[in-house]
Amino acid sequence: MKKYTEAELKKIYSARREKLFEYMQENKITAAVFEDTEERRDPAVRYFTGHPSDALWICTSSGKNVLIPWDENLAKEKSIDIKIVPYNKYKRENTSAVRETLKSFKISSGRLKVELPPVTPYPLFLKYVDALSGWDVLCREKSAHDFVRDLRACKDEYEIECTKEAARVGDLIIEKIEKGIDDGSIKTETDAALLIEKELRANGCERNGFDTLAAGPERSFAIHAFPGYTNAPWPGKGLSILDFGVVYEGYTSDTTLTVVKEPTDEQKKLVELVEKAAEEALPYYKAGEQIRIAAIAADGVFKKAKKTMPHTLGHGIGLEIHEFPRVKADQNTELVFKPGMIVTLEPGLYEPENGGVRLENDVLITETGNEVITHSKIIWR
Amino acid sequence: MKKYTEAELKKIYSARREKLFEYMQENKITAAVFEDTEERRDPAVRYFTGHPSDALWICTSSGKNVLIPWDENLAKEKSIDIKIVPYNKYKRENTSAVRETLKSFKISSGRLKVELPPVTPYPLFLKYVDALSGWDVLCREKSAHDFVRDLRACKDEYEIECTKEAARVGDLIIEKIEKGIDDGSIKTETDAALLIEKELRANGCERNGFDTLAAGPERSFAIHAFPGYTNAPWPGKGLSILDFGVVYEGYTSDTTLTVVKEPTDEQKKLVELVEKAAEEALPYYKAGEQIRIAAIAADGVFKKAKKTMPHTLGHGIGLEIHEFPRVKADQNTELVFKPGMIVTLEPGLYEPENGGVRLENDVLITETGNEVITHSKIIWR
Repeated sequence: MKKYTEAELKKIYSARREKLFEYMQENKITAAVFEDTEERRDPAVRYFTGHPSDALWICTSSGKNVLIPWDENLAKEKSIDIKIVPYNKYKRENTSAVRETLKSFKISSGRLKVELPPVTPYPLFLKYVDALSGWDVLCREKSAHDFVRDLRACKDEYEIECTKEAARVGDLIIEKIEKGIDDGSIKTETDAALLIEKELRANGCERNGFDTLAAGPERSFAIHAFPGYTNAPWPGKGLSILDFGVVYEGYTSDTTLTVVKEPTDEQKKLVELVEKAAEEALPYYKAGEQIRIAAIAADGVFKKAKKTMPHTLGHGIGLEIHEFPRVKADQNTELVFKPGMIVTLEPGLYEPENGGVRLENDVLITETGNEVITHSKIIWR
Repeated sequence: MKKYTEAELKKIYSARREKLFEYMQENKITAAVFEDTEERRDPAVRYFTGHPSDALWICTSSGKNVLIPWDENLAKEKSIDIKIVPYNKYKRENTSAVRETLKSFKISSGRLKVELPPVTPYPLFLKYVDALSGWDVLCREKSAHDFVRDLRACKDEYEIECTKEAARVGDLIIEKIEKGIDDGSIKTETDAALLIEKELRANGCERNGFDTLAAGPERSFAIHAFPGYTNAPWPGKGLSILDFGVVYEGYTSDTTLTVVKEPTDEQKKLVELVEKAAEEALPYYKAGEQIRIAAIAADGVFKKAKKTMPHTLGHGIGLEIHEFPRVKADQNTELVFKPGMIVTLEPGLYEPENGGVRLENDVLITETGNEVITHSKIIWR
């Protein structure tokens, strides 16, 4: 992908933060706390600061903001244009860190409102209320964090570039998987999964997006096979699934391919239905269209054949593997696709007696329609 | 490891549940809710039910209890002697699932108290309060869940067997790593990490305990290198770290080895200090001893050399990679080692100019002392 200069990255991160500050001003939120820790993960911290690891990030509507990382050295290396205060300074206590940081902002006038993450546990919320005297302590579903979820749903230019790079590496791997099936180097679920691990790192990706799911014909009936992969044969006679993602600079791809080998008529039919559902749903992935319509189109294909898909048709991807929005038939009618969203399209059918088939690709919503950025497929052998 | 019959497993899981019910009776808690979902992980659900995936588990002090899994088929296969009601029945809403399940218990008398997980977000807590009229809704730090944390800290016979099996496979892998260094098949961080992935599955383990950390001399100064592994040379001249765990039937091992190659005097000194700290701390890993004493012993070794270890000396392991208790010098004086605890011992030193060294093994506390169940080491080359 294109190399971004430090100045360009500063501008991108600054633009993200400005949008949040503006929202906070409009909604009279004086300060907001974001937390990304082992207890409560929130990639919003990385989204606003560049720091990819445990930290608090605290900001005000006027644009003051501080990153409080566990690992100061890593934060210095990774964060983009931001003030750093190490967590150790506050005896590793969230409430002290927030209290002292808010004090340091020296906000003198007006009603002081601080927004905590809506995932803050009730007992911790009570501690914050005690610690932050003089402040209205907010912890609510409709929050600045909710605004950030929506903001993150529409990717900026840099995020799109990173996701496309992940998609490119994912495509490379799909080619190698296909080759490995043919030359006999991939014989088991583990062979497939390890090829992915090896190639993603060889191509500059940082990790897998989630534990790879490689399920041969005996296990493919499960939506998410447990464990993710074993030493069982892969692919085998029937339906074999491979679901994986690779992460480039934080951004993950998410694709599933199915290998079809000497299928029965029933298995062939499942595959054709899934391909048809993907085909019929794709045109509805476009800016302005209600999100639920695509799911209704896919469900319709299955319904005619008296089949049911046991999961949603898709979900946003980004710094997390499952992001807003969900593509499902009972989705809120007000939710529409917007340019910059990157959403999976992943119809699937699963039957204990026949096995499972899923076809998953990642779709970027553009101003004029969509762009399918990954090239996963049904592989017939 | 020894094969457990279904009857034996039923007895083991039933004994765990009985201990919780007893605690609830003593503390007048009518019902308790445990949640293991993508939003809030809690292996207590697997601990009490055997089901390893997303679910709610709701129980009463009189022993009624229901598992509410996302994936009914998986729950049927994996759960041990328990009533199952699929989550879909409740429109995938926690509050409805809890309300209807509590109703189904038909508890007619007495003050009704239900304990929610202490990690329940404040906004969700308010919804529970609305949904559960007639019930005192508890969400507090000192809770049934806290009791379960302590219960899980002391492993039962089955848990010890599973962890020892994970440790055995981990030891096998350490041998293969050493061999791979010598025969030249391990040249990079990725080579080492992939060997682990491959071998753990070939030996019946379900997954790694956490993303393997393989850090060559350029990256070993970080406690937790980011990303976990790359294509950089491993091992190299200087200090190279490998930190990994393997999971058998849910239970993880956690070991770190360091490869030392053509060390400088300064590097040699770091290694000797870490080995000495491990040696001096180990005898304090014994039943009845204050947990902090072992950490003080290790810290003392470093202090004499004017060095500081930037992390705690150890932590419990089990269904999670980091469990109660933490081994650290400022630990509560009331906390003592108890038989059945399995705790890491992992002194380490890290210097940007010299690299890092860590030596980590897993220690089972016995009635009479301890048993080191893993055999990680410093590998000189």
